[in-house]
Amino acid sequence: MRTLTIDELNPAIRNVEYAVRGELAIKAEKYRTMLATMPKEEHKLPFDRVISSNIGNPQQKGLDQPPITYNRQIAALTEYPDLIEKTENIFPKDVIKRAQEILEEVGSIGAYSHSQGIPLIRKSVADFIAQRDGYPSDPEQIFLTAGASAGVALLLSMLIRQPNKSGVLIPIPQYPLYTATLAQYAGVPVPYHLDEESGWSTSPAHVRESLEKAHKEGVDVRALVVINPGNPTGSLLTEPIQRELVSLCEEHGLVLLADEVYQANLHYPDDYPFTSFKKIVREMNSKVALVSFHSTSKGVTGECGRRGGYFELENVSEEVRSQIYKMASVGLCPPVPGQVAVDCMVRHPREGDPSYPLWKKETDAIHAALAERTRTMVAKLDGLPGMAVQSTPGALYLYPRIDLPQKAVDAAHKVGKKPDTFYALALLDATGICAVSGSGFGQRGDEAHFRLTCLCAGVEEYVGKLERFHREFMTKYAD
Amino acid sequence: MRTLTIDELNPAIRNVEYAVRGELAIKAEKYRTMLATMPKEEHKLPFDRVISSNIGNPQQKGLDQPPITYNRQIAALTEYPDLIEKTENIFPKDVIKRAQEILEEVGSIGAYSHSQGIPLIRKSVADFIAQRDGYPSDPEQIFLTAGASAGVALLLSMLIRQPNKSGVLIPIPQYPLYTATLAQYAGVPVPYHLDEESGWSTSPAHVRESLEKAHKEGVDVRALVVINPGNPTGSLLTEPIQRELVSLCEEHGLVLLADEVYQANLHYPDDYPFTSFKKIVREMNSKVALVSFHSTSKGVTGECGRRGGYFELENVSEEVRSQIYKMASVGLCPPVPGQVAVDCMVRHPREGDPSYPLWKKETDAIHAALAERTRTMVAKLDGLPGMAVQSTPGALYLYPRIDLPQKAVDAAHKVGKKPDTFYALALLDATGICAVSGSGFGQRGDEAHFRLTCLCAGVEEYVGKLERFHREFMTKYAD
Repeated sequence: MRTLTIDELNPAIRNVEYAVRGELAIKAEKYRTMLATMPKEEHKLPFDRVISSNIGNPQQKGLDQPPITYNRQIAALTEYPDLIEKTENIFPKDVIKRAQEILEEVGSIGAYSHSQGIPLIRKSVADFIAQRDGYPSDPEQIFLTAGASAGVALLLSMLIRQPNKSGVLIPIPQYPLYTATLAQYAGVPVPYHLDEESGWSTSPAHVRESLEKAHKEGVDVRALVVINPGNPTGSLLTEPIQRELVSLCEEHGLVLLADEVYQANLHYPDDYPFTSFKKIVREMNSKVALVSFHSTSKGVTGECGRRGGYFELENVSEEVRSQIYKMASVGLCPPVPGQVAVDCMVRHPREGDPSYPLWKKETDAIHAALAERTRTMVAKLDGLPGMAVQSTPGALYLYPRIDLPQKAVDAAHKVGKKPDTFYALALLDATGICAVSGSGFGQRGDEAHFRLTCLCAGVEEYVGKLERFHREFMTKYAD
Repeated sequence: MRTLTIDELNPAIRNVEYAVRGELAIKAEKYRTMLATMPKEEHKLPFDRVISSNIGNPQQKGLDQPPITYNRQIAALTEYPDLIEKTENIFPKDVIKRAQEILEEVGSIGAYSHSQGIPLIRKSVADFIAQRDGYPSDPEQIFLTAGASAGVALLLSMLIRQPNKSGVLIPIPQYPLYTATLAQYAGVPVPYHLDEESGWSTSPAHVRESLEKAHKEGVDVRALVVINPGNPTGSLLTEPIQRELVSLCEEHGLVLLADEVYQANLHYPDDYPFTSFKKIVREMNSKVALVSFHSTSKGVTGECGRRGGYFELENVSEEVRSQIYKMASVGLCPPVPGQVAVDCMVRHPREGDPSYPLWKKETDAIHAALAERTRTMVAKLDGLPGMAVQSTPGALYLYPRIDLPQKAVDAAHKVGKKPDTFYALALLDATGICAVSGSGFGQRGDEAHFRLTCLCAGVEEYVGKLERFHREFMTKYAD
């Protein structure tokens, strides 16, 4: 009798890679434990804390984005409604009213909800979308999800109709959820590269080339994934490009999967406003099938742990909607506390509400901190010897390119590592800064990048450490 | 340009069936909306409320299982920690201490946690298991999940290594999550029938026959699913049978998937105590690969909406554990409020704690109500003309058999329905009682069953309605 071994597993599972929580994250976790449990003489690490710059996890311990009071007050009252009677002057009137409205709808938030999400909250989402875009939105076309990831995985699993034949166009660099999920369902990733030199812009002509190449190779391309604003790049599509992409999808019968999770993470929103694909599709009066994803994990909400999100269907037939509903129902329902977080995100306090002044102050502070840190980091890192950072409208991630000396590349290969992973591991070992190397997001063979989040407080000290490390690394391996 | 149609989807998705939230549930929802929005003259329904007896959703509106105060107080404090300072005499000292301990560990519950689950809470689970079984449990082998369903789906997706060839032994009747998930991943369901006449017992000899038959048909059988206590049957395995099943798995290299979600839903736990497969495997010193599932959705916790649960691995190699971890990490983390609910379930107040008296009172009342309702329902329904109900140790579901007259069967076929679905639809139309028909769980071709939950208050009135309906139905279609 043997224990279960890896050879007995679905081989597609082995092909899944997910770098954001991979080797670097696991090593950082180990260092964190060592720092917490060992004296300095024993752990001998050259740093006092691990700086988690690898995950867009705003409320992570040691990071700097506090939860919004309004969101947490609603959460507390919906969890424990007795507080409404038992307290005075703690909860503003609008908070109590909103919590009661949700409780009236669901009874207890401990109950399974409608599999598609609580109808009241789907209506809130539809109102938010209509307000944002100037076009109506139908709550029946909204699905609440456990974060955007769950929605993306569901849609991809449904669109891959033939293993190793159905393909999906994905940007490179991309958020590795896409390649991981495609690997799991044996879908073919059809990459299109973003153009780094022009701020990681998307070229519809290049997308078309990739599509045609895939067609020639016999791939049945089903969908186009667009991440806008970009992850890890922070780039923002212009409306003319969005229109061209919609036309391309129309022409080739592609489903457009619009990952719009970072729509509130923009540091100059007045100069570079976000335009949803929903709005573009409506403006064009297009019949392209569109699925747009959003999440409570980013923006000012930052409630990753709740697992809240939604997607909206546009131009999807009722029979397909029923299939999506059926699959959602197998998982019973999205987490109800996450659904409540969605409601708080899309139906936040308005001017005149008792909660508004505090909500405004807190959200303004988060936007300002993200913007400030992003700009400081770009200013300090771009132009270091062998490092270049595109300044993009996104305000959550930085994706510096590093031009590694050949000696570093050789040293990496010698220990069986990709050069950028070798660099990021050295960064972690020397400074405690945990980043994700570019190979996790995809890049051309000879390139090297790494992703940092703009969520860590003490940015001067942190970037100072990074700068010192980088200079030493480049000197050590100078050709 | 066409919209996305069903023919363009992954064909495996079309094969997924999930009756618990299927036709009957959708019709019940429609009636609920009609009752809420229309005057009686307009909706013309012969009932005033829909009785949701279809889903094990204890805190559903109109049902009767309140949340445990302790659980909700912990939830409120972890969501909004300011309450600790802002209130007096609302939260018992042990609640505050526990909430602070969790917050100390995670920082904010709005952050992504460790993908495998919060280490502190995995330790709580391991302690609970060790206490329950008398054998140690390792937190590294515990994965927290979004309900048991998410864990089951993950494991099945990993074990099906060849579409339409890898098989999994499942009980019939079964909880339809299993057939739905197997259909999604193109796994082959290998059914073994439970024996209704002996209280839905499991015969290892019959499991073996099913296995051998599948082998002959070229199916590569990977795993044995056991639901204990049973859903929908409420049956409880005896220890000798559990041992035989473990031996069978050993002999054939099967992974044992033990769905133990209903371990606290027993109405005579002193007479029929629950024994985990973990305990049996350890007692036998077996090397069988075992995955045991539990959930916060049932028992006295009943927090379905939170999506909390866990699985424990036993005799699973480290390389497989890493693969499971990797797949969990693609989904980032289980919902943190659900993880907190797991902690509350496995580490509830103990004698001497300030919260204990209320916790004891509340949980005793829930156990008593479930047991009482189960007994009342069995007593009233068993022996009605054409109806037979097995009395089993489980205290959440009833699974009556109905012997339908040929005229009813013919009438069903005439409208294209399975006979038991025809019966359950007629029940819903006449009384507002929503059940799930047996065809959703699997049964032999000529059988008819339906599942009721024992969660509805007013059991006398409700069962009275059901009895009247049943007598009229049997008369109407009498041969």
